[in-house]
Amino acid sequence: MLTLYYLPGTVAVASHILLEELGCDYTAKRLDGASLEQTKPEYLKINPKGRVPALITEKGILTETPAILLYLIQRFPGTELAQPDDIFELAKLQSFNNYLCSTVHVNHAHRKRGTRWADAANTVAIKAMEEKVKSNMEDCFHIIEDEMFAGPWVMGENYSIADIYLFTITQWMEGDSVSISDFPKLEAHRKAMLSRDAVKRVLQQHAG
Amino acid sequence: MLTLYYLPGTVAVASHILLEELGCDYTAKRLDGASLEQTKPEYLKINPKGRVPALITEKGILTETPAILLYLIQRFPGTELAQPDDIFELAKLQSFNNYLCSTVHVNHAHRKRGTRWADAANTVAIKAMEEKVKSNMEDCFHIIEDEMFAGPWVMGENYSIADIYLFTITQWMEGDSVSISDFPKLEAHRKAMLSRDAVKRVLQQHAG
Repeated sequence: MLTLYYLPGTVAVASHILLEELGCDYTAKRLDGASLEQTKPEYLKINPKGRVPALITEKGILTETPAILLYLIQRFPGTELAQPDDIFELAKLQSFNNYLCSTVHVNHAHRKRGTRWADAANTVAIKAMEEKVKSNMEDCFHIIEDEMFAGPWVMGENYSIADIYLFTITQWMEGDSVSISDFPKLEAHRKAMLSRDAVKRVLQQHAG
Repeated sequence: MLTLYYLPGTVAVASHILLEELGCDYTAKRLDGASLEQTKPEYLKINPKGRVPALITEKGILTETPAILLYLIQRFPGTELAQPDDIFELAKLQSFNNYLCSTVHVNHAHRKRGTRWADAANTVAIKAMEEKVKSNMEDCFHIIEDEMFAGPWVMGENYSIADIYLFTITQWMEGDSVSISDFPKLEAHRKAMLSRDAVKRVLQQHAG
């Protein structure tokens, strides 16, 4: 049995959607963000980094979205989701997902989580970081739209974990003052993702 | 034939060491950081993100360190480097490497690359980011030392790509005002890495 720890609307949405897509047996445990449950000793035993998602498996605990997504598609083959057996195709997929975690997600985090990188009392610095989020995110989405997105899915003809991860992050666009209509491929991609039952179920759960 | 594009002393050191460890045929092309060659149109055709490393293969171009490292060990099996066949072991390895790219490297980058996240003219913000790097990096290395590092190598008994990647980042400690002697496991790990011929060859090339 798998257990996913999540905070609503965070990057944990990606792992959650994938679990729904795979139709596997799992439990989703929502942490209480208001009381910062993710930073409390009990949760730090699960993930010492104090972040979500964390996936409990029979063999141990996994963290970091790209690692969790790859693990889950390898564990539950035989679904619609692409299984990249060719090592170059796998590397392209991982390269895309790693860009999301190392650059795109990080740029987004500077809007509300600036205190990770500057003293909370330094309001000038916190505000300066917030102000650059819109243009940084637009730069990233232009690279994705123009250079990386094969279409109709991220990697081309086959729906993959890259689509689930990308969708999770494009859901943050409006909050970051980025207009999705400036990115026609990403706009069509969001529409396709929103029509999927697994996506609907997870978004509903995170909104509730 | 493989071609690696690098800037000396950057995270490209990791891919470079791995190529040396694998003993495969490759060319290493050094970009001219002084003239910002990585941001010029010719290189942007290789990597639109304007970053290193980039690895040219017969099938296409790969970027992002965790993806390149996994690709290379899968392409050249039969060496001393661990080949995680079990999907959980692979996920643990990827989780470690993803933590390095999404959190540890990012924290480090706020010392010299603060202008990615705040206007360059805002010297208060740039300085505030620089000042938090030491404690952020110490926090990360404590989590690695205390929670993640199995010993004697990152993943336990077997030398793996996680060791090469971790070593690359611990080389930045002194520049970030972090004392490696506060982290006995990482200090022993650095010593073990520095004794390897492949590591010596790459460090010499990057220093030259």
